[in-house]
Amino acid sequence: MAIVGKALIAQGGGPTAVINQSLVGVINELKRYPNITKIYGALNGVQGIVDENFLDLTLETSHNLEEVANTVSSALCSTRVKPDADFCGKIFEVLKAHDIRYFFYIGGNDSADTVRIVSEFAEKANYELVCTHVPKTIDNDLRQNDHTPGFGSAARFVVQAFKGVNMDVRSLNGIYIGIVMGRDAGFLTASASLAQEFEGDGPHLVYLPERPFTKEKFIEDVKKAYDKYGKCLIAVSEGIRTPDGKSFLESVKGDLEKDPHGNAQLSGNGALGDTLADILKEAQVAKRVRADTFGYLQRSFYECVSDTDRFEAREAGEKAVQYAINGGKSGSVSIKRVGEYAVDYVLSDLKDVARLARSMPDEFINEEGNGVTEAFKTYCRPLIGSGVKQSARLKAPRVEKILNK
Amino acid sequence: MAIVGKALIAQGGGPTAVINQSLVGVINELKRYPNITKIYGALNGVQGIVDENFLDLTLETSHNLEEVANTVSSALCSTRVKPDADFCGKIFEVLKAHDIRYFFYIGGNDSADTVRIVSEFAEKANYELVCTHVPKTIDNDLRQNDHTPGFGSAARFVVQAFKGVNMDVRSLNGIYIGIVMGRDAGFLTASASLAQEFEGDGPHLVYLPERPFTKEKFIEDVKKAYDKYGKCLIAVSEGIRTPDGKSFLESVKGDLEKDPHGNAQLSGNGALGDTLADILKEAQVAKRVRADTFGYLQRSFYECVSDTDRFEAREAGEKAVQYAINGGKSGSVSIKRVGEYAVDYVLSDLKDVARLARSMPDEFINEEGNGVTEAFKTYCRPLIGSGVKQSARLKAPRVEKILNK
Repeated sequence: MAIVGKALIAQGGGPTAVINQSLVGVINELKRYPNITKIYGALNGVQGIVDENFLDLTLETSHNLEEVANTVSSALCSTRVKPDADFCGKIFEVLKAHDIRYFFYIGGNDSADTVRIVSEFAEKANYELVCTHVPKTIDNDLRQNDHTPGFGSAARFVVQAFKGVNMDVRSLNGIYIGIVMGRDAGFLTASASLAQEFEGDGPHLVYLPERPFTKEKFIEDVKKAYDKYGKCLIAVSEGIRTPDGKSFLESVKGDLEKDPHGNAQLSGNGALGDTLADILKEAQVAKRVRADTFGYLQRSFYECVSDTDRFEAREAGEKAVQYAINGGKSGSVSIKRVGEYAVDYVLSDLKDVARLARSMPDEFINEEGNGVTEAFKTYCRPLIGSGVKQSARLKAPRVEKILNK
Repeated sequence: MAIVGKALIAQGGGPTAVINQSLVGVINELKRYPNITKIYGALNGVQGIVDENFLDLTLETSHNLEEVANTVSSALCSTRVKPDADFCGKIFEVLKAHDIRYFFYIGGNDSADTVRIVSEFAEKANYELVCTHVPKTIDNDLRQNDHTPGFGSAARFVVQAFKGVNMDVRSLNGIYIGIVMGRDAGFLTASASLAQEFEGDGPHLVYLPERPFTKEKFIEDVKKAYDKYGKCLIAVSEGIRTPDGKSFLESVKGDLEKDPHGNAQLSGNGALGDTLADILKEAQVAKRVRADTFGYLQRSFYECVSDTDRFEAREAGEKAVQYAINGGKSGSVSIKRVGEYAVDYVLSDLKDVARLARSMPDEFINEEGNGVTEAFKTYCRPLIGSGVKQSARLKAPRVEKILNK
């Protein structure tokens, strides 16, 4: 029989456009179970748990919850705190004090690890607590998952950005570099490839953290593409690395600001884009070189949300509750792909999802390591959702010249 | 009686999300007049005219034209060439050779100037030619216009970007700087203010080219806002200037790359945002300072188009043809605001629109010169179009603490 007690939900890590869909999925599904006495939400992730900053979500109206579900970023707010064992022990003490019996944490692989450690504390203390991790990350780098909620909408933003830039650069020519988020995995950068509609459309080059990046090869690649197309669009992951595995940006700029997870600050500035543009200008590849860093817009843009992503984020939340209450076992909800295109959800072991990140498989990257394969595009296409407008071009014939014959 | 002959259309300057609406407005309206023997489109603006690179748009299908109308950026492609009198003379010779009697140029104030000079060549040569300028610019800096096609959609992008970032920074705190296009006029940067929904929402500070910018006041402003809100969102125009009227970025970075119009390259890199972030970090205002430069995305993003803007861009094209053929007089189509909210179109003298740019009026800027007034918001609100989603927040009450009492 299901345990009687309270449920607690929190959101961790960077926000996405659909993370509140998962939140509302969890809340609404919890409401169906009479053994759930209260539904609490912790503000600011694990920090809010330790500080006992809880909202009583049982008292939210269903209308407001739907409005929140369609609001980007984390409604419960997040944190960059990376809990150690000691911190997780404190989390457990608070859960126990409030008679929390179900703990749901929406986040990436670090959040999954937190869930894992907390569940171990409970086990050791013989306290009945089901700990469930709900997947979320625009980087798409969670193991055990075909893809993760948040990725599809961010990918849609990247695709739309490059579609617009394709038309922009077609109109005014030159070289364009777009820097895309993704420290360890290139999925989001690779999604730019879906912006290719017409022959000659960009991105003509795609650089990923999964393949070594050198200045020399970069110049050579761009020269070749520019000669061929008279323009060049380049999608670059913020996480590109030198052949010895160091961050390319750090190799050029020296030590960068670090976050509590020890990761160098790659987002929130234009350094990488400007560095790459300078390299091309110095090498005199072209006169007009522009670089945009998509930055925070790509993870929380209201008018660019994938419907597929939205539905799946909601379902992941609902399934988390079903697994927790009906199954009574801690774990991480994972998305599996079925056919072309549907998904199924399974409960994975927390240790198989926690900590380590997933990279792009080899079959998604071209041999030269500067582009993606058709297999990747087939993989990615359903994730960005429906209703992506096709660009159109004028088809009228040329008029015969009179003066310049 | 209306002159019998061909019509030529071209698009100049930077692209917008709705510039093809104006193009299709001109084409479709021209089709209604039997005195128009052919409709030509010049590729790459004035450069394509001199090179006689024309498409016979008479042979486009109406379906494809509608698809093109909904495609961002300039379907006829553009140019950064700034024609001098000699160049305009060449344009006129080509128009004459092809028996062009109606010339439509969709563009900003530089394009209006080109139209003016070409019309003077025709007049001097006693060649019957009606030259019509159709307004377009995301900067919203055309004189004689309440606002210009292209602005509303770009403003919508900026609003959506800041709305998302509001939720993002609420979730993770810190200081966020968003750099917005606009060399001489601050309208687009100012539009970020419409992202304010809840008490405490950003942008908390807005810096415009119309007011002097100093590092000292900037630090002071941000400190004050950060103390008050525990976070700070800042919208900065790429064109901010020092008190002696120089580009702030050039004052810090030295001479920048120049375009053929003699303008320093402000877009297409992250230099200004990074410079401002470094200023705040050095002054130790906060630890977490992030800067995004919205770059090219803001002028050609498919999923962020204002319906108001789309309709008006189409109408501006149609009205241009009506003025040209029924009125037979050269000029520039201008948008006037009527009531709350409708628009009317008038034909302005080319010399009143050409060359000089319009700045934001004083009543739109706050006294401190670091924000906008309610009058600006009232002005801007209808332009970004309908269907902008309201953000929602959880409203549930707090739970009483047990351990941290």
